Amino acid sequence: MFPRHAWYVACTPDEFADKPLGRTVCGEQMVFYRDGAGRAVALEDYCPHRGAPLSLGRVCEGKLVCGYHGLAMGCDGKTVSMPSQRVDRFPHIRSFPCVERYGFIWVWPGDASLADLAKIEVLPWADNPEWAYGGGLYHIACNYRLMVDNLMDLTHETYVHASSIGQKEIDDTPCDTRVEGDEVITSRFMTGIKAPPFWRMALRMNDLPDDQLVDRWQICHFTLPSHVMIEVGVALAGKGGYDAQPEFKASTLVVDFITPETDTSIHYFWGMARNFKPRDASLTTQIRNGQGQIFAEDKDMLERQQANLLRWPDRRLLKLNIDAGGVHARRVIDRQIAAEKAVIAPLANARTATESVA
Amino acid sequence: MFPRHAWYVACTPDEFADKPLGRTVCGEQMVFYRDGAGRAVALEDYCPHRGAPLSLGRVCEGKLVCGYHGLAMGCDGKTVSMPSQRVDRFPHIRSFPCVERYGFIWVWPGDASLADLAKIEVLPWADNPEWAYGGGLYHIACNYRLMVDNLMDLTHETYVHASSIGQKEIDDTPCDTRVEGDEVITSRFMTGIKAPPFWRMALRMNDLPDDQLVDRWQICHFTLPSHVMIEVGVALAGKGGYDAQPEFKASTLVVDFITPETDTSIHYFWGMARNFKPRDASLTTQIRNGQGQIFAEDKDMLERQQANLLRWPDRRLLKLNIDAGGVHARRVIDRQIAAEKAVIAPLANARTATESVA
Amino acid sequence: MFPRHAWYVACTPDEFADKPLGRTVCGEQMVFYRDGAGRAVALEDYCPHRGAPLSLGRVCEGKLVCGYHGLAMGCDGKTVSMPSQRVDRFPHIRSFPCVERYGFIWVWPGDASLADLAKIEVLPWADNPEWAYGGGLYHIACNYRLMVDNLMDLTHETYVHASSIGQKEIDDTPCDTRVEGDEVITSRFMTGIKAPPFWRMALRMNDLPDDQLVDRWQICHFTLPSHVMIEVGVALAGKGGYDAQPEFKASTLVVDFITPETDTSIHYFWGMARNFKPRDASLTTQIRNGQGQIFAEDKDMLERQQANLLRWPDRRLLKLNIDAGGVHARRVIDRQIAAEKAVIAPLANARTATESVA
Repeated sequence: MFPRHAWYVACTPDEFADKPLGRTVCGEQMVFYRDGAGRAVALEDYCPHRGAPLSLGRVCEGKLVCGYHGLAMGCDGKTVSMPSQRVDRFPHIRSFPCVERYGFIWVWPGDASLADLAKIEVLPWADNPEWAYGGGLYHIACNYRLMVDNLMDLTHETYVHASSIGQKEIDDTPCDTRVEGDEVITSRFMTGIKAPPFWRMALRMNDLPDDQLVDRWQICHFTLPSHVMIEVGVALAGKGGYDAQPEFKASTLVVDFITPETDTSIHYFWGMARNFKPRDASLTTQIRNGQGQIFAEDKDMLERQQANLLRWPDRRLLKLNIDAGGVHARRVIDRQIAAEKAVIAPLANARTATESVA
Repeated sequence: MFPRHAWYVACTPDEFADKPLGRTVCGEQMVFYRDGAGRAVALEDYCPHRGAPLSLGRVCEGKLVCGYHGLAMGCDGKTVSMPSQRVDRFPHIRSFPCVERYGFIWVWPGDASLADLAKIEVLPWADNPEWAYGGGLYHIACNYRLMVDNLMDLTHETYVHASSIGQKEIDDTPCDTRVEGDEVITSRFMTGIKAPPFWRMALRMNDLPDDQLVDRWQICHFTLPSHVMIEVGVALAGKGGYDAQPEFKASTLVVDFITPETDTSIHYFWGMARNFKPRDASLTTQIRNGQGQIFAEDKDMLERQQANLLRWPDRRLLKLNIDAGGVHARRVIDRQIAAEKAVIAPLANARTATESVA
Repeated sequence: MFPRHAWYVACTPDEFADKPLGRTVCGEQMVFYRDGAGRAVALEDYCPHRGAPLSLGRVCEGKLVCGYHGLAMGCDGKTVSMPSQRVDRFPHIRSFPCVERYGFIWVWPGDASLADLAKIEVLPWADNPEWAYGGGLYHIACNYRLMVDNLMDLTHETYVHASSIGQKEIDDTPCDTRVEGDEVITSRFMTGIKAPPFWRMALRMNDLPDDQLVDRWQICHFTLPSHVMIEVGVALAGKGGYDAQPEFKASTLVVDFITPETDTSIHYFWGMARNFKPRDASLTTQIRNGQGQIFAEDKDMLERQQANLLRWPDRRLLKLNIDAGGVHARRVIDRQIAAEKAVIAPLANARTATESVA
């Protein structure tokens, strides 16, 4: 159960630079490639000839050519040609709305007629030369809601990431959660604390002393279908915290796109956007490697949490104040799923009527 | 669903030269070994004492001795002896009709009373000193019909085996399919083409020039239960093609025995028989290695095609002209399965009657 | 189906010396650790906050602290504390009766109110300085009854362990089985035989000649829930066999605790206790390594026997005289399971009544 009429990050362009990429998004098996104009395309990963996966094929003059018997598929899901065959009556396959933006490939697994580019998450930093971004992809065997919970309750940093970004003061400082339309925001502000190792490194990268007390903040933003952007940073203590002048602080944006593969697995696109030293590529690499190690620490916990929940399906999770971000995010998700059902039923009826007439 | 009253290739003698071999054929778990007279035997892989697999045992004076507690099984499925036990009332296990012929072990997984040695595929080349054979065995997670399809439609060579035997002219040249009783024959004749790498090598092996135009042929023969023999070759262009004199051509026979393990897996015995330089063992090895590499290219495609078909069980495969060989082969198979059902029902009734009397 | 109101060996202390241990016993997922007083504790491996496995946490001042968000669990299954939370209304998790004795951790997976320390298997040799013990743990994918059968019928040594402890005379010598309450005893006495390799080594370790005829014995004791202790030894022939004076014999006790994990898997704790050279640690290592190799030979047989029994659920196992030990042990087990059902039903009724009143 996930929102389907929504834009998800499906992959990054490098993943299908050399050959088509097969990937399942929201239970839909898809193949990604570029058409003749260089546009990203997402189709069902199924050749209408004999059911071979098109992702084992290759792209030839913008057509995806099946690697089994040479059927050439168009980006609209209609067969273009096949050696020595007439193809006009071949069955179509689904073509999923797909667009490249901000360095990611976005796909809409739901009803194509509802796809609206205006609904893609806006990433103001992504095309801004004053910002740099680095990230990666992890496959995790858990429901996407467990990862939303994880990111909306950062008290876990104290335990899961004790050696890098965790510190006792996160536990001790209450968070505040509010809902603005379909956005859920959980924030925590800590003042006059020692910076943990990751932030001491970030201070040094910003040419700031790493041995002074700091103010630290975490502001988690959940948006549909399942994105979490987290403003994180530290400022030298007493300089205004989150609102301090740039020369007194180190701050970044943690970027999380959580794309359901199945009900119990996700493609987790994680990354960090920063607006300091944006042209320092080796710094980007260094930060990505560090973040990659930290975020890998969640995988085992989430997968075994998922296994426990499957083992004990009747047990209820507690909903404490620290869980408020995840709880509200799940409500937004549930509301969206319910709204989609209300939309799909009339659509389905309308189509049946049309088909009856035709 | 496969023909059961039929002879399948189960294994090759080297596979149980040192110790018994456990293998499942048509869903029947079997153990293969040689009895005291050196004859190949196939029994249920189940010790009637405690259910241990007999294939973990060893052969002792022609009896298969269970590796758990020493029960000695006879080749008829009746226990011969067990240390300190009377065994005459031990339950029997199934003994499957089994015979060694042409360098293969053939087994009949269906009703033993219907087994008829005359029904074993005739391989005229197998015992002929003017011919040599080399081959191997692959385990592939697909239904056996998908492999029959694969071998009866060689247009896939252009895509799956592009660097060895594939060439565009296969696609461009129509094939002809005919049914003769239970045999299905698909043939394709190409004239005045360049030979692809594998055939250039074969020309050189036959002391023929490899840089001239050739005529090329592919004649696929499907026979029950699921064998495919393919006559393949090239002749120097204009010398008569398939009917050219031996000194102008290079030709071989591709041998494929497709033995169902389960509904979604096969033991695939592939090989090549040739009638040139039959005593050149290193040439046999060279050809086998080359063929093994080429045929391994099908495995991933077939396994993922199978996964797709399981994912979308309601979609129909297209039946194009190039698929005619597979389509007709499936009809022959289906007819055989239906005929077996018609035979088995009376048999089962007859037995019940007999047992009632007894 | 296993006895639940019983003490099972769950693990050894070294397994949770550094961090908590997650392990499933009789289908119950448990976590093992030491509380502040150093006592072994077994809890459900489930954090009541969000379902994370507590075994990924760490022990802090005797409390098990969840590795996800810091909930501190007490040894009674009640949450002790959680940063910035009131925890008095948090749901409890199960605490399993657990005790350390004889160098093992014992757990009672059934109703805690029925746990009785007096029911732990008595191991007289375990705390006796004249004895030494070495052992190990294997995970085997079979039902626990198959391992009981294995150990109560040692004719398998002749086949499975032919190169170490097996010998033809085991087959040739009848065994005697008797039942004493809930204990089943199978014994075999062989006289004037050659010692197999393992026992020749044991004779040398006891400073006895290894080239003379010996008397050999095997006395297997099954006790609930699924322990098998086997007295094994050899004496120089004619010196009294089992009753020979110590200077003429080499004997040990094979120790087997068979702990069900699921219906088709076990934690198999095997070992050997000896009363010669008990302070020779290198000898303990040497014996353990030898026994470990021998006992590993059973794993493949048992797992494939289990697979065969699942494949053919309707076939009955034979019950020969050599199987009498296992057959009687299963009867004792079945009687225990039936008795537990008779106890649990009233308990469950009583509780429902209490709850109705409350």
